[in-house]
Amino acid sequence: MTTRIILAGPRGRMGSEAIKMIQATKEFSLIACLDREATAANESKINEIAGENIPLYEQTDVCFQETEADVFIDLTVPDAGYIHTKEALSHGIAAVVGTSGFSDKQLEELSQLATKQQTGCIIAPNFALGAVLMMHFSKMAAKYFPDVEIIEKHHDQKLDAPSGTAKKTVEVIKENRAKKMQGHPHEYESEKGARGANMDGIHLHSMRLPGLVAHQEVVFGSNAELLTIKHDSFHRESFMQGLKLAVEKVLDTDGLVYGLEHVMEL
Amino acid sequence: MTTRIILAGPRGRMGSEAIKMIQATKEFSLIACLDREATAANESKINEIAGENIPLYEQTDVCFQETEADVFIDLTVPDAGYIHTKEALSHGIAAVVGTSGFSDKQLEELSQLATKQQTGCIIAPNFALGAVLMMHFSKMAAKYFPDVEIIEKHHDQKLDAPSGTAKKTVEVIKENRAKKMQGHPHEYESEKGARGANMDGIHLHSMRLPGLVAHQEVVFGSNAELLTIKHDSFHRESFMQGLKLAVEKVLDTDGLVYGLEHVMEL
Amino acid sequence: MTTRIILAGPRGRMGSEAIKMIQATKEFSLIACLDREATAANESKINEIAGENIPLYEQTDVCFQETEADVFIDLTVPDAGYIHTKEALSHGIAAVVGTSGFSDKQLEELSQLATKQQTGCIIAPNFALGAVLMMHFSKMAAKYFPDVEIIEKHHDQKLDAPSGTAKKTVEVIKENRAKKMQGHPHEYESEKGARGANMDGIHLHSMRLPGLVAHQEVVFGSNAELLTIKHDSFHRESFMQGLKLAVEKVLDTDGLVYGLEHVMEL
Amino acid sequence: MTTRIILAGPRGRMGSEAIKMIQATKEFSLIACLDREATAANESKINEIAGENIPLYEQTDVCFQETEADVFIDLTVPDAGYIHTKEALSHGIAAVVGTSGFSDKQLEELSQLATKQQTGCIIAPNFALGAVLMMHFSKMAAKYFPDVEIIEKHHDQKLDAPSGTAKKTVEVIKENRAKKMQGHPHEYESEKGARGANMDGIHLHSMRLPGLVAHQEVVFGSNAELLTIKHDSFHRESFMQGLKLAVEKVLDTDGLVYGLEHVMEL
Repeated sequence: MTTRIILAGPRGRMGSEAIKMIQATKEFSLIACLDREATAANESKINEIAGENIPLYEQTDVCFQETEADVFIDLTVPDAGYIHTKEALSHGIAAVVGTSGFSDKQLEELSQLATKQQTGCIIAPNFALGAVLMMHFSKMAAKYFPDVEIIEKHHDQKLDAPSGTAKKTVEVIKENRAKKMQGHPHEYESEKGARGANMDGIHLHSMRLPGLVAHQEVVFGSNAELLTIKHDSFHRESFMQGLKLAVEKVLDTDGLVYGLEHVMEL
Repeated sequence: MTTRIILAGPRGRMGSEAIKMIQATKEFSLIACLDREATAANESKINEIAGENIPLYEQTDVCFQETEADVFIDLTVPDAGYIHTKEALSHGIAAVVGTSGFSDKQLEELSQLATKQQTGCIIAPNFALGAVLMMHFSKMAAKYFPDVEIIEKHHDQKLDAPSGTAKKTVEVIKENRAKKMQGHPHEYESEKGARGANMDGIHLHSMRLPGLVAHQEVVFGSNAELLTIKHDSFHRESFMQGLKLAVEKVLDTDGLVYGLEHVMEL
Repeated sequence: MTTRIILAGPRGRMGSEAIKMIQATKEFSLIACLDREATAANESKINEIAGENIPLYEQTDVCFQETEADVFIDLTVPDAGYIHTKEALSHGIAAVVGTSGFSDKQLEELSQLATKQQTGCIIAPNFALGAVLMMHFSKMAAKYFPDVEIIEKHHDQKLDAPSGTAKKTVEVIKENRAKKMQGHPHEYESEKGARGANMDGIHLHSMRLPGLVAHQEVVFGSNAELLTIKHDSFHRESFMQGLKLAVEKVLDTDGLVYGLEHVMEL
Repeated sequence: MTTRIILAGPRGRMGSEAIKMIQATKEFSLIACLDREATAANESKINEIAGENIPLYEQTDVCFQETEADVFIDLTVPDAGYIHTKEALSHGIAAVVGTSGFSDKQLEELSQLATKQQTGCIIAPNFALGAVLMMHFSKMAAKYFPDVEIIEKHHDQKLDAPSGTAKKTVEVIKENRAKKMQGHPHEYESEKGARGANMDGIHLHSMRLPGLVAHQEVVFGSNAELLTIKHDSFHRESFMQGLKLAVEKVLDTDGLVYGLEHVMEL
């Protein structure tokens, strides 16, 4: 059985990787794209990546009416993605959305809609399976290793520090970690900032250098032993395994699932 | 409530660490030791480590009759450990045993005895929580990352390669890993051995250098991403957190449990 | 003063990076390319990369006669490269050649020619400055740390193991390392190959996984300490800093220099 | 020829390692120790470590008059070390001193004295050969890789951050590094401290966890490549190779040398 897919955001950096992934997967078929500018030029760009002609729509409702899709993938921005996803679920089409930008209220609304429609909806802030596992393992380890620090390393064109993934990792670790005062109670910095950022007692360090891509190490320390969980991502191509998994799983999902880890067998 | 403990093998390297751990734990009390040579000299050695006088026994049955223990810890060798553990379970004393050396037949026998006696028995090949988690996470990751290699690094006084932990890691990974031909089908070694050992398609590499202690990295590779799980052990002190956990859990355990991961909340 | 450059091999993977580097360097000017197939199609390819029209030659002697160059860069294959380089030196043009494939006899001949012509010639097996430094530092460290192992990691499309860089690193380490029996004299492999390849007592390990690019670690061990020198290369773009340096240095060089380390200030 | 050695500070953690090293070295002979409390109890402690009776002195001048030494080793504190070293040089005895605590004025005075006496004097802030090489290589690399960050990792009982070695590494890197604005000009911290300490544009990060001992990584980044120089020290035993080297070299040294790197063949 072929899974018929509509993709929103086909010209973005993630979108064009998604087209390649769909076309390379025998069980998947790309039946339409949703684009905010359905010009001939854009259509030809998309067709070139896809290697075949893909109908391009500008209007969400028309797209969902005129086509018969199993799964809708949204790789646009939160505002548009929210509207697209609501429309897809209303048409009974399962949705896979790559964003961490929805508000709690939006998530609640989509959850109710998905449940009512008995349709699956997977929203994932991160599709890199390695990053998802790194965070999940870190959460698990925190129960037995309350002493933990994080170092994330990115190219020097990145503006913000620490990275979103590092902050998210702290969030999940906190769910399992016994509150504790970490480091020596009298420790001091002879150079300000040396001990990094301190989020709920967990120290984070952000390295920025040319040559780096996107890397994170979560280091747990205990009596005479260390446990390190490390993820290296070299290209956004790394997201495609997870996106593929989400498309496969969303058809067996009922209601909204937030985070890829909840459809993985862990 | 205090947990009353009998320890077998108190003069070994693990045993003396265990004495220190028990004495440092408020809820634990060391009430006797089992030693194959209960000489005055050995008694004085043990008392020095313990910081108090601990009755020393040579005969297993006498020891278990004359004392009233909750938990028996065995850190001796497989042959003696098997006899000790049987005796402990027969007396209704929960047992924690550090060994990977029992035969399947011995394990089966101890399992039946523990069940019949409604007594807990935890047998663990490795008490380092970090190593146990490394193996458990590796097993979990293998479902999504079938491409994996292991490098383990030890001091140059180690005789065998690869390490027992590395081989055990391959065993657990295999339970979850889709069989696959790894590496390029036409790859070749211009220097024999460069690609390491090959166990069921998983390559293992053993580094031996002075300065190293005991380290292992399990590296998973996929499209444009890597996931690495790494454990460093600097001293056998690292086993004590896990031994403590086993003593705490064995009283709530019914029957035999093999491997610390099964009493951890994972 | 502008350095006028002729490039041989402009359509190769290295060659196209070289064009970009030359065009991005204010002091460099690409005045011609040497190509074994000077077709209109190839010319247009090259012009597109260069962003301007670059004369394309098929015949070496014609190229050197009709143009007035300061430096000739060869990024072709050893056989062609040897002929090109001889011709360049004969015309008094300094040459920078990226190859490890010349025979000792060819090197000797080019060396005599360069000296006779009072022209510089830099032949480098590796233009990545980080890799050159890794090897140089490894050679220096070997004097004080005779215990050393190498692990190199590459993508799983690489056919040969160990890598050329790893073997070259062994060569330079040997120049400074006291001969010694490494590892335990009675060490044994329970799984064949675990201890890696053994080149003159130095063990080499080759990891191959998807997601990896090109990485090498040289690990030196001694009493209670480790020194590790590591290089990660993510793209052949990393060669361009070194190629640029070679072009700058070759004009001040008299005769043949083999290896970038000899024109660096180390 | 045997080198006759006087050791000051024999009961300190470094001192007792030094006694073991001297006794294990065939060419070295420990002829006396200098101790600020030459009690019978201390003498017996030292004799136990040495495995033979070593004369113990409290008064510096008496010690140097009554014995005939080739080399004096000082492993005490700066104040005492300065007085001892002056006395040793005055008696024409070569001195090896492990400290970073002498003032510029003290160094100048000792330098003049050593030159006048035609005696060698090696003062080293760090005797771990791996650490010395890490700093030296970092200095060399900085010429070609101006983008660099440092992460140092220590046990959580360490009070100060960053470590002295990290700060010293910044010092030596600065000697060779072109001044540059590192990182993105508009980078910002959403959590204060994430980007670490900033010493002259070089970012430093200090990790503190139980299980860690003493580790430092110097990471250089450039176009698509990284060069990392890493040192791990697991025990102060690691200083002994360097101390031994200093004792061997000081007899061929004339005047004062500051830093082990200047007597190494680099």
